[in-house]
Amino acid sequence: MKQRIAVTMGDPAGVGPEICLRLLADPSLAHECAPVIFGDADVLRRVAAKLGLPFDAPVIAQADWPKAAQGIDSFAVLDLRCVDGAALMPGKVDARCGDAAFRYVIAAIEAGLKGEVAAITTAPLNKEALHAAGHKYPGHTEIFAERMRAERSCMTFFSDELTCSLVTVHIGYHEVPATLTTQRILDVIHLTADAVRRQRGREPRLAVLGLNPHAGEHGLFGRGEEERVIAPAVEAARAAGLNIVGPLPPDTAFLPARRRETDAFICMYHDQALIPMKALAFDTAVNTTLGLPVVRTSVDHGTAFDIAWQGKASAKNLFAAVRLAAKLSRPAESGKSPSPSV
Amino acid sequence: MKQRIAVTMGDPAGVGPEICLRLLADPSLAHECAPVIFGDADVLRRVAAKLGLPFDAPVIAQADWPKAAQGIDSFAVLDLRCVDGAALMPGKVDARCGDAAFRYVIAAIEAGLKGEVAAITTAPLNKEALHAAGHKYPGHTEIFAERMRAERSCMTFFSDELTCSLVTVHIGYHEVPATLTTQRILDVIHLTADAVRRQRGREPRLAVLGLNPHAGEHGLFGRGEEERVIAPAVEAARAAGLNIVGPLPPDTAFLPARRRETDAFICMYHDQALIPMKALAFDTAVNTTLGLPVVRTSVDHGTAFDIAWQGKASAKNLFAAVRLAAKLSRPAESGKSPSPSV
Repeated sequence: MKQRIAVTMGDPAGVGPEICLRLLADPSLAHECAPVIFGDADVLRRVAAKLGLPFDAPVIAQADWPKAAQGIDSFAVLDLRCVDGAALMPGKVDARCGDAAFRYVIAAIEAGLKGEVAAITTAPLNKEALHAAGHKYPGHTEIFAERMRAERSCMTFFSDELTCSLVTVHIGYHEVPATLTTQRILDVIHLTADAVRRQRGREPRLAVLGLNPHAGEHGLFGRGEEERVIAPAVEAARAAGLNIVGPLPPDTAFLPARRRETDAFICMYHDQALIPMKALAFDTAVNTTLGLPVVRTSVDHGTAFDIAWQGKASAKNLFAAVRLAAKLSRPAESGKSPSPSV
Repeated sequence: MKQRIAVTMGDPAGVGPEICLRLLADPSLAHECAPVIFGDADVLRRVAAKLGLPFDAPVIAQADWPKAAQGIDSFAVLDLRCVDGAALMPGKVDARCGDAAFRYVIAAIEAGLKGEVAAITTAPLNKEALHAAGHKYPGHTEIFAERMRAERSCMTFFSDELTCSLVTVHIGYHEVPATLTTQRILDVIHLTADAVRRQRGREPRLAVLGLNPHAGEHGLFGRGEEERVIAPAVEAARAAGLNIVGPLPPDTAFLPARRRETDAFICMYHDQALIPMKALAFDTAVNTTLGLPVVRTSVDHGTAFDIAWQGKASAKNLFAAVRLAAKLSRPAESGKSPSPSV
């Protein structure tokens, strides 16, 4: 039986419905998993009619879920009936859409926690619409963290070119040094190792970056963060059996030769990871949250209100996000513990 | 008359002599400028014989310089006779080589300051050998800064893929926020604008990066460095007539579309510039020091002692460095002042 992947439709007034329709129209993905759109069938029908896209996936009413879920072997739509498609304008901030998008996510989280789906892939939310509906979250990540009560999680970007995990994310530049701890770095190393092991089906080759130019050049730059904080995490990970190097000088870490021999980079701060990710894999990166009880991947773009319902949106990133969700939610093949402490 | 470019031979025991021989063997460059190797003819002869490379460039004795310089129209070697080629071992740290490499640089600086050469391109030094000879400089940059007494200078990397200037360079991660000043950023903007104007022969399109994730997202992250320190420099540069945007979110600054519309990026710290440079232009970047009274470019690699005198070293980066030196030392075409104050 294929893994069911919940795909939330995102803000109905954005590009979410269109990219979900493109997913439903392509049989290739259904060989690998069973994507179930968590959204509104009425909105999908309206967008399909407007754009001349097919829409013939089975529609499951909420009352029939989860019983009907067991029989899904390719695509399906779980019709959550949150919003009236005929009443919506594409590309407009609308509290009804923000509320609907929120409810798709909550339904997917509940299905994930109950084991009714193996993983969740999210199409984009509109933050303004979400807030207008009274859901005061900065984004998906915080909704997942709250509802799934993860003790330890990290943001990781996967692409064919490179994969990067972030030790710190949305904090000021100046806050990074004091926020880095050996335990946090080790947690991110193990979360990453576990995910990349599932993705690649083998032991991953990991590289941990330094914080300072030239990784401090033996204490010449910085406050010894490499020796004091980062190196002990690398050593502990190596002692736990991982294939890992570092702390590496950040600038040479992403040279082509080093990229070829590295399955994932552990980065100390937002732009250390995101600058090379966006420079090298600008439209293929998949954003994931590791460490949640249910695998979650996300498209790496927004609602793109300016091109919503116009037939211009590419579903390439959504395909990649669903495929990765299927890979990451496969049962682990290795017996390595994902999270020993220092 | 072509511009004469002094090319220092670098540490004789490294790859410098070999890449200089490859430069002398390729007539293409001599159409654009007149490179003069500042080094030891004896070492070049010995390496040429070992590797079967031609060496038929005119050799000028120090006594005949600068008179003979006036007549150079393609390649030449200024024979500084600092070291005995027969006494050297390739790939070994040797104080005699460190001293010779230092003296080539000093001779080139003197020739530059006297106007006998239009620009200087440096082949790599070995820091250990330099120190063993009693010259306690961290590298070329400091020798140039001391001898040329530049009030204002900056490190800039040029490549076909992207060009980046650094506001701060070799300091610890934590020191960057306090080191950034509006005046320093504005100086780097103007030094960069002036150089890229010479390189491209037109007004450059510049982009200044923020410091924090998402350039602070309207004060959400960081201490308002974007609003307090960086934006005023961008505004002053725009008021002075420059084509400039920023502060940009650092991660999306290097997206392919943005790179195509940007001639040079002004980066706040070492790895913000060097990560994308090395990821995207790993073997074609040319390192330059802007703001010196004489243009200086440098190869972006070291002495590579492990492959010295073996016929394996690529001179591609040296060619690029010499070509850029020739472009940057052309007389400026625009009357724009390179350095108004804030």
